[in-house]
Amino acid sequence: MPRFRMTVEYEGTGFVGWQRQANGPSVQEAVEAAIAAVTGEHPAVVGAGRTDAGVHARGMVAHVDLATGRFDGRTLCRAVNFHLRPAPVALVTAGIVDPGFHARFSALGRRYLYRILNRPAPPTLDRNRVWHVPVPLDAEAMAEAAAVLVGRHDFTSFRAAGCQAASPCRTLDRLEVCRAGDEVRVTAEARSFLHRQVRTMVGSLRLVGDGRWQCDDLAAALRARDRSAAGPTAPAAGLCFEAALYADGW
Amino acid sequence: MPRFRMTVEYEGTGFVGWQRQANGPSVQEAVEAAIAAVTGEHPAVVGAGRTDAGVHARGMVAHVDLATGRFDGRTLCRAVNFHLRPAPVALVTAGIVDPGFHARFSALGRRYLYRILNRPAPPTLDRNRVWHVPVPLDAEAMAEAAAVLVGRHDFTSFRAAGCQAASPCRTLDRLEVCRAGDEVRVTAEARSFLHRQVRTMVGSLRLVGDGRWQCDDLAAALRARDRSAAGPTAPAAGLCFEAALYADGW
Repeated sequence: MPRFRMTVEYEGTGFVGWQRQANGPSVQEAVEAAIAAVTGEHPAVVGAGRTDAGVHARGMVAHVDLATGRFDGRTLCRAVNFHLRPAPVALVTAGIVDPGFHARFSALGRRYLYRILNRPAPPTLDRNRVWHVPVPLDAEAMAEAAAVLVGRHDFTSFRAAGCQAASPCRTLDRLEVCRAGDEVRVTAEARSFLHRQVRTMVGSLRLVGDGRWQCDDLAAALRARDRSAAGPTAPAAGLCFEAALYADGW
Repeated sequence: MPRFRMTVEYEGTGFVGWQRQANGPSVQEAVEAAIAAVTGEHPAVVGAGRTDAGVHARGMVAHVDLATGRFDGRTLCRAVNFHLRPAPVALVTAGIVDPGFHARFSALGRRYLYRILNRPAPPTLDRNRVWHVPVPLDAEAMAEAAAVLVGRHDFTSFRAAGCQAASPCRTLDRLEVCRAGDEVRVTAEARSFLHRQVRTMVGSLRLVGDGRWQCDDLAAALRARDRSAAGPTAPAAGLCFEAALYADGW
């Protein structure tokens, strides 16, 4: 029974998130339905990570097992994409992979990009893709403060109330802030993240950016191990799951 | 009577174009209505260029004369943007300018960006912002061919049937093609363009990109001075008015 590895891109605005839920349409469900329409099979699609309602993805990785030998990756992509329309979800790549590959458990890292549109005027072309922050942000101060969070820490302060992870400890491999014109971009990379960790880190970095916080305030928030010590959760629209990272062998 | 210079950004999908028309909502009309709501005045807003239905802008420049002395540029921006909602149109900047400035006649150049999404999978996050070309394009061949069109030429072959310009001659200052991941980007710059010239040039370059045309075919199309000799018009969605260029004094 061949296992397919897929790269999934989606515009998350109209979805309750990646994961199947009772309260609305999920991306996982959309992909599963399209695969069922193409193959007549009803296998579960397993994603590398969950994304919340309104969060986007350029490089979600998922796997699925199909009994049928009729499809190569390219044909599967084309057929599934045909059935996904008009939903803003597409398989960018698909190919047969060793059955030992698991989209979630084999992943060595996840990379997210958070985009802040930092100008007085509201977004037009980038509506639903960015967080609009109209007051000037000091991206250099944010970059400096971000370094405080890199490394292995107890991230209790940056974890949503409903987070189900067994441990609040995570190793944050990368948290970089840079300005590109009107945009401030935050790149975060870790083996895994706590629920809403990226958005809470971004919401806290914003406080540094607009001068309400100094580096030390961010360090104190981390040490507090208390969600109320960190900044507000940044909106979902600015967040995009960029890539899941695997060992070279895959 | 102060003259304001404004930079306008818009998502053109739902508009008949920049220019006021009887058959549907225009960007010009939306901006004029918002200015009227703010100021109680009904002046015409003059844009640097016209854009067709579905074409976007990041840097359309426009001017307007207002009798009221109540507004500085920043306040005008904020108030007009408030009234523009929920239309995907925003004033990114506004400021008082010398009354000799004219958004259209003072412009020394216009720059457009055309984005082609070049991969088998359809767009999701960039839907309505790109032209989806699923077959592989040779961006280097397109870049080489583009050079054929740069300079002063009779662009009759690349001009829409309804084009009202007195002369078909234009000086194309820049036509560059580059690949950025899955995207092929075409940048075009000239003092002015004929109607649909950029989209017809892109539609022709695409024929070079997919191997149906060689450089010489593009040169022959230019020499033919006949619209039917050039390629099809590329879709509006991929085109964005990036900037109007003025002398340093403005």
